[in-house]
Amino acid sequence: MKTVFSPLHAGHAGTLELVAGELAPGFEKPSRAQFIKARVESEKLGPVISPQDHDLSAAKKVHACDYIDFLPTVWPQWEAAGHTGPAALPYVWPTRGLRADVRPRAIEALLGFYSFDGGAPFVKGTWKAIKSSCDVALTAAGLVSAGERAAFALCRPPGHHAGSAFMGGYCYINNAAVAAQWFRDNGAARVSILDIDYHHGNGTQEIFYSRADVQVLNLHADPMSEYPFFLGHADEQGDGTGEGFNHNYPMPAGTAWDEWSAALDDACARVAAYGPDVVVVSLGVDTFEKDPISRFRLKSSDYPLIGERIARLGPPVLFVMEGGYAVEEIGINAVGVLTGFEDR
Amino acid sequence: MKTVFSPLHAGHAGTLELVAGELAPGFEKPSRAQFIKARVESEKLGPVISPQDHDLSAAKKVHACDYIDFLPTVWPQWEAAGHTGPAALPYVWPTRGLRADVRPRAIEALLGFYSFDGGAPFVKGTWKAIKSSCDVALTAAGLVSAGERAAFALCRPPGHHAGSAFMGGYCYINNAAVAAQWFRDNGAARVSILDIDYHHGNGTQEIFYSRADVQVLNLHADPMSEYPFFLGHADEQGDGTGEGFNHNYPMPAGTAWDEWSAALDDACARVAAYGPDVVVVSLGVDTFEKDPISRFRLKSSDYPLIGERIARLGPPVLFVMEGGYAVEEIGINAVGVLTGFEDR
Repeated sequence: MKTVFSPLHAGHAGTLELVAGELAPGFEKPSRAQFIKARVESEKLGPVISPQDHDLSAAKKVHACDYIDFLPTVWPQWEAAGHTGPAALPYVWPTRGLRADVRPRAIEALLGFYSFDGGAPFVKGTWKAIKSSCDVALTAAGLVSAGERAAFALCRPPGHHAGSAFMGGYCYINNAAVAAQWFRDNGAARVSILDIDYHHGNGTQEIFYSRADVQVLNLHADPMSEYPFFLGHADEQGDGTGEGFNHNYPMPAGTAWDEWSAALDDACARVAAYGPDVVVVSLGVDTFEKDPISRFRLKSSDYPLIGERIARLGPPVLFVMEGGYAVEEIGINAVGVLTGFEDR
Repeated sequence: MKTVFSPLHAGHAGTLELVAGELAPGFEKPSRAQFIKARVESEKLGPVISPQDHDLSAAKKVHACDYIDFLPTVWPQWEAAGHTGPAALPYVWPTRGLRADVRPRAIEALLGFYSFDGGAPFVKGTWKAIKSSCDVALTAAGLVSAGERAAFALCRPPGHHAGSAFMGGYCYINNAAVAAQWFRDNGAARVSILDIDYHHGNGTQEIFYSRADVQVLNLHADPMSEYPFFLGHADEQGDGTGEGFNHNYPMPAGTAWDEWSAALDDACARVAAYGPDVVVVSLGVDTFEKDPISRFRLKSSDYPLIGERIARLGPPVLFVMEGGYAVEEIGINAVGVLTGFEDR
């Protein structure tokens, strides 16, 4: 399996995030991608190739144009506003009786206008990392479209919390959603997105919620007690023509392989019934028992079984990297899924 | 004029707030109230009295019951969750495709569920301060209802950003709104709320937006470039039976007395045309030229003119303290409004 990777991710570094009443160094840091790439190489998964440059038209098919056009302007606007803090962050959001229909002028407000949390910080190198991450996903999608059985988009920053016009949760452009749309525009009649990150992929769900041509399945921690808290319940099954094409599997803290894999089996059965031309896997490995910000109990030996199960689906698969924060093990577990897929 | 004041405000101290990418000591701090009280005494404005204890039924007439019941539980829940940071703050909000109809269980999520920013921190003494601030407003309202020409509710924390089910911008219970409702329930047919704080009183507007029995007028910085950014435009004129009873006067950075007082004159003309039985003034003095977080250019000599103009309206007036952060001058300017009123 080929891996697509860009070193430009590393410019998105030194970020801060708002958590539990404190601004802390971001858990989403460059070493994550480096550990995964090192494991890809040591396990001899296959060639690691660089992404091709794409324009932003593919991203603008699932994101609002004004949102995508905003992203490269954040850091220059933040600097022009005279801020000296280490990262650009919003501090007020258009919720609770506030208007989201008027776009304010101030950069401090625009950051809130286009987000839902304090978890999508910008530093000088952030935009180039975002763009490279999207290029990684599109390049890997091209490999699958050209006939590869699977490809691994080693995206960083991740994407599944980013929606049509918002960032959040370390995510800016929804790489998996952009790739799914690209498949649709390049011959695939139906695409399934299987999101196995610990956190609900609220952005992916929002983007495709009214569509029947992209099925979205999410296995994740119950939002009643875990981020992103305000989406990911079992009763969210799609809207309009999309009704029945969104499936959520919220699971409680402490969930281990037996229960988790039963949900995976159910999701895979739904994928099989849907009959997609291609499957996009939003690959988070923060389901790991030692992940510092999560509370599932998957073991490293479980991850190859995930890959094996996905391989049995049949259609070609694009793996898109999402979360996972136990830095040393992130490579072992992510690549474990991929080798499990290959070994099948 | 009598001033109502509670020392319990002082327990709301040592807070942090999220601004411009940093967590900084809150501008809204105990010395604000202490400077105002000292000036009330040195200017011999009148007696300073303690508030009477009220139950929460008055607050629950303008706020959702579940919201008010939540507030005293915040700090105990935060401590029980094992957090060690100096203040309880949210980090994700139900905006942008997220659901506000399902109340999550986690305290970190509930803080976001009931707020719109990172500017309503909780410490151990916060709830007692909130409750005392509401008691201060209700006690002062009682003085006016009993025949006083005016009274000064030296509230801290302030209230005008707090809405029916949300906190934010240093505000938790909307003291002015609670008092206005109390007047309605105690004989007043119509009440006007005149909000002269630098920042738009989004909470007050939201609470009364569909009502004709409480007129709301807001003089403030243009939300296109100033907090709270997402409400306070001139086209917001009320809804349903409330249409025509909400008036916003957004003004640009740099606004000085001539332009500001013209807006005040227009607002006062609207109050006179409405013919309220009582006027509640949300008294912010962050319009001051030296305020550290604002950009209007009112001078200390302008504040007595505001009081004089309000006195000419005729109806009795409840002054409710809101913002103002140039700590030394906050007493001079706030009490300047009150003595200007008294001298008329």
